[in-house]
Amino acid sequence: MPTGGKAGSARRLQSLDEYAGSRVLVTGGLGFIGSHLAAALVELGAEVTIVDALVPGLGANPYNLRDIEDSVAVVRADLRDPAGVDELVSGRDHVFNLAGQGDHLASMRDPENDLALNCRAQLNLLEACRRSAPETRLVFAASRQQYGRPRTLPVHEDHPLDPVDVNGINLCSAEAYHLLYHRVYGLRSSSLRLTNTYGPHMRLEEGGHGFISHFIGLALHGETIDVYGDGSQVRDFLYVSDAVDAFLAVGITEATAGQAINVGGCGRTSVREFAELCQSAAGRSGRVVAVPWPEDRAAIDVGSVYLDHSRLEAATGWRPQVGIADGIRQTLDFYRSHAHAYRS
Amino acid sequence: MPTGGKAGSARRLQSLDEYAGSRVLVTGGLGFIGSHLAAALVELGAEVTIVDALVPGLGANPYNLRDIEDSVAVVRADLRDPAGVDELVSGRDHVFNLAGQGDHLASMRDPENDLALNCRAQLNLLEACRRSAPETRLVFAASRQQYGRPRTLPVHEDHPLDPVDVNGINLCSAEAYHLLYHRVYGLRSSSLRLTNTYGPHMRLEEGGHGFISHFIGLALHGETIDVYGDGSQVRDFLYVSDAVDAFLAVGITEATAGQAINVGGCGRTSVREFAELCQSAAGRSGRVVAVPWPEDRAAIDVGSVYLDHSRLEAATGWRPQVGIADGIRQTLDFYRSHAHAYRS
Repeated sequence: MPTGGKAGSARRLQSLDEYAGSRVLVTGGLGFIGSHLAAALVELGAEVTIVDALVPGLGANPYNLRDIEDSVAVVRADLRDPAGVDELVSGRDHVFNLAGQGDHLASMRDPENDLALNCRAQLNLLEACRRSAPETRLVFAASRQQYGRPRTLPVHEDHPLDPVDVNGINLCSAEAYHLLYHRVYGLRSSSLRLTNTYGPHMRLEEGGHGFISHFIGLALHGETIDVYGDGSQVRDFLYVSDAVDAFLAVGITEATAGQAINVGGCGRTSVREFAELCQSAAGRSGRVVAVPWPEDRAAIDVGSVYLDHSRLEAATGWRPQVGIADGIRQTLDFYRSHAHAYRS
Repeated sequence: MPTGGKAGSARRLQSLDEYAGSRVLVTGGLGFIGSHLAAALVELGAEVTIVDALVPGLGANPYNLRDIEDSVAVVRADLRDPAGVDELVSGRDHVFNLAGQGDHLASMRDPENDLALNCRAQLNLLEACRRSAPETRLVFAASRQQYGRPRTLPVHEDHPLDPVDVNGINLCSAEAYHLLYHRVYGLRSSSLRLTNTYGPHMRLEEGGHGFISHFIGLALHGETIDVYGDGSQVRDFLYVSDAVDAFLAVGITEATAGQAINVGGCGRTSVREFAELCQSAAGRSGRVVAVPWPEDRAAIDVGSVYLDHSRLEAATGWRPQVGIADGIRQTLDFYRSHAHAYRS
């Protein structure tokens, strides 16, 4: 990995030899997680092609490839358009499918756009794989957001899917398509339901990228972080190198084909505690203040949520490696020298 | 109702006075169930507007309105295009939303088209209602197909949704949008998960319209009916007047807003028994023969399925009225004089 998040690399390199020389496509590979995954695959000796539409607001950033730009092929293409998708997937041993929108509020403002980005594009990719890459190993980036407000904690994969926004509904469909194409066509696809993921390469603007990057941006500048309510909502924050390890592990574990699999984080931390760790790591004496819930946020809030990741652990041996304090420190270390590239 | 299915009408007319003078939009109103619903609403004194895109293959048939064409307004418009949808919903007391595709095999052949018909169109309608008819009462036609292969019988609304084809996935999304718009925006929408519905106004071609209309078409001509496997799969067949009664009852029952509700049929009947009843009612000595499952059908078959409709009964007093033998007889009576209009 180019910067930050070395934890877990040693383990990865020991067991992931089969990626060496393999032909891999990473969709959304200019984005936050996709760019780290591409870098890890390069490090493992894979022949990596990135496809990204560079849709504004979705996190694609050419700067994310600064350390690997000579080692990967980059194709600018929009999966919403079926033209050319067959050529992109043809001959790939692996497709890591991280394209899409994860912006809750944007999905409520423009539900049709969310549908096109998260459902139409995914159907195009799956149809292309069915036709032109039926043997490929496909791993889709889904979200714990699909569960909605948890009825039981920790959230197991069998928990009902009851998303609270259009984005969550469309992600459920996108995941269901992936699993259906396994069931009906034998396509070797898995879906990873990622919990809140953080680390280098996140955009730092407030808005659709979630509270994590917003908090980090504020902490960097010593500004006050507002937490909604009392900030007691619990999350299991996932450092990006652990997310990458999960994709890599699932991609070579045949038994996970056809499955939806939780990727939970390291421990359980309240939103307020996360904010305080950000301020502490930044060392600039910014404060954390509780404020009332804004109406649009409250309508789609899910309360505390953390995942049971025993299915992934049993199938692959994966466990999250990077604790919250280490992860936040590495993240802030990164942005101290690179923040200019993550603000518009 | 114009033809057939008089059972239940008396009860309906007693309790449904509030539709008199109300302004009602029926989407997909040229189709099988939509046209019966429109006729019932006319009979109840409602001011009915039908919108239909007349998409080939979806069952729209101007002949379905032959008895009410002077009593309803018909707008040819495609909900996939957002232009004009606000004007259509504005001022309506009720919107019965029966537009969409229910064709399992077509959804696998052309998943993007199914997505546009069942998700994009529904988002357009919901956005228009949110903006221009926030007080309307909206009832959506969903399907028991969303459950997939039942894990428990009869299938209750809490049964996991695990559809076996793209159409089922997209219907789940369409329903979820309707319930989300209730939760987030207070839109008074309900979703009816209809079991296998039959009766006058079905298309009679083989193909995407399910086995029921195909069987009836064969029986009319005294031809052999092939049932897949041994034909022992059980269904709870729903006569169309009972489906109409369910829409009407839910449309005036405020407590059902925000809910998904099963609409089950009258009793439980095997597919083979249904075929034999068709042959018997036709009186033309056609036979019923068991044949092996075709591969494309077997891949998306769900086995036996019948619904628990106690939620609907508790909320509205609705119960199915038309038994299977009566329903099949009325259906065949209808097609003896009208079949010419239901074949292409």
